[in-house]
Amino acid sequence: MTKDGPSRGLGRRPGESGTREAILAAARKRFGNHGYDGATIRGIASDAGVDPALVHHFYGTKERLFAAAMRLQVLPSELITGVLGAERDRLGAEFGPRIGEILTGTMLRAWDVADIRTAFLGLLRSAATSDQGVVMLREFVTSTIVASLTQVAGLADDAEGRYRATLVASQVVGLGFARYVLGLEPLSSATTEDLVAAIGPTMQRYLTGDIAPESPAGVSS
Amino acid sequence: MTKDGPSRGLGRRPGESGTREAILAAARKRFGNHGYDGATIRGIASDAGVDPALVHHFYGTKERLFAAAMRLQVLPSELITGVLGAERDRLGAEFGPRIGEILTGTMLRAWDVADIRTAFLGLLRSAATSDQGVVMLREFVTSTIVASLTQVAGLADDAEGRYRATLVASQVVGLGFARYVLGLEPLSSATTEDLVAAIGPTMQRYLTGDIAPESPAGVSS
Repeated sequence: MTKDGPSRGLGRRPGESGTREAILAAARKRFGNHGYDGATIRGIASDAGVDPALVHHFYGTKERLFAAAMRLQVLPSELITGVLGAERDRLGAEFGPRIGEILTGTMLRAWDVADIRTAFLGLLRSAATSDQGVVMLREFVTSTIVASLTQVAGLADDAEGRYRATLVASQVVGLGFARYVLGLEPLSSATTEDLVAAIGPTMQRYLTGDIAPESPAGVSS
Repeated sequence: MTKDGPSRGLGRRPGESGTREAILAAARKRFGNHGYDGATIRGIASDAGVDPALVHHFYGTKERLFAAAMRLQVLPSELITGVLGAERDRLGAEFGPRIGEILTGTMLRAWDVADIRTAFLGLLRSAATSDQGVVMLREFVTSTIVASLTQVAGLADDAEGRYRATLVASQVVGLGFARYVLGLEPLSSATTEDLVAAIGPTMQRYLTGDIAPESPAGVSS
């Protein structure tokens, strides 16, 4: 009984949107049950009853599929490497000393977009309430955000670099939680400019500053 | 059929523990439905079918009743004013420049106690999942933690003082979430000493440092 006349023809075959939905539903389930790292395109395709090549064709990478399944409007790694990479190219040598401020502003402007904020808070909520959500968010943050932050900030790909990136993540998550979930005032109604001034230097220290315990008095390393 | 022989007699009347339980159950419900500020001792007593004076007798203040109902092992305001107040008395003029480090260490040592950590994470979870939990945690944080932090750190009781205290709260909540809920590595296995060195200066800046946006170039205020 479906009409299939010439008014169709937006380049999608009949049934394509149903297939996409089936893939996204299978992805949400797999990511939930197996975590971000454990879920495979092959397994998701199998659950959705389609060929893995079709999943690759529709969504490209696993991160992109995750973002679509979780209704993220932007890829965190693209936001970080895209916006910060462009600023790095524009500012040259000035970029390094200003990365904390630039990162803080980028993050706040992303959260100003209601859909992005909603998706971010959804991930936080799922991590706060289920062990599956924890595994999923931890692996996603580590595989995409920490990795791209390490790259764009020029951090060493070692334990110290990852420690610096996770310190940044702790302030990012806490700011999102205090400002958007708890609505703590006056933090919640502070302007982007205020918060960049207050929190930018924190990010800068975590990324490039001295964060190690002091050597015992009189001993320099 | 209950035995009421001489083996009893720990100073509690028969039925006291049942009354306490009824009060705590009524308190959890009232705090959940009305928030921390909206819940009254009178209302909780009424729900539990007891006299308000008995609630005061058992629990003293509303904060103490809240802590008992939420199974907090310490009162956050007592932790802050007690531990930090003692350090202030001990260190004198040295206390001010070290408050960030002392606050960070105090918080991490409290979280080392499993029961305290569990209660803290329970509050975070309830805020992440229900609007009632949000209101309860926001008002509790504001009425007790922000207030006692403002006092012990000698912050002005104005918008700037509260802004500084809520910036601290954002890093505290984020550290707890990243370290204990998400388990982000290597943050999660960092030592207390490492974290005091990394995060202490953040707390110090939020409490006592320069956090305002710069004046336009060439104009000093």
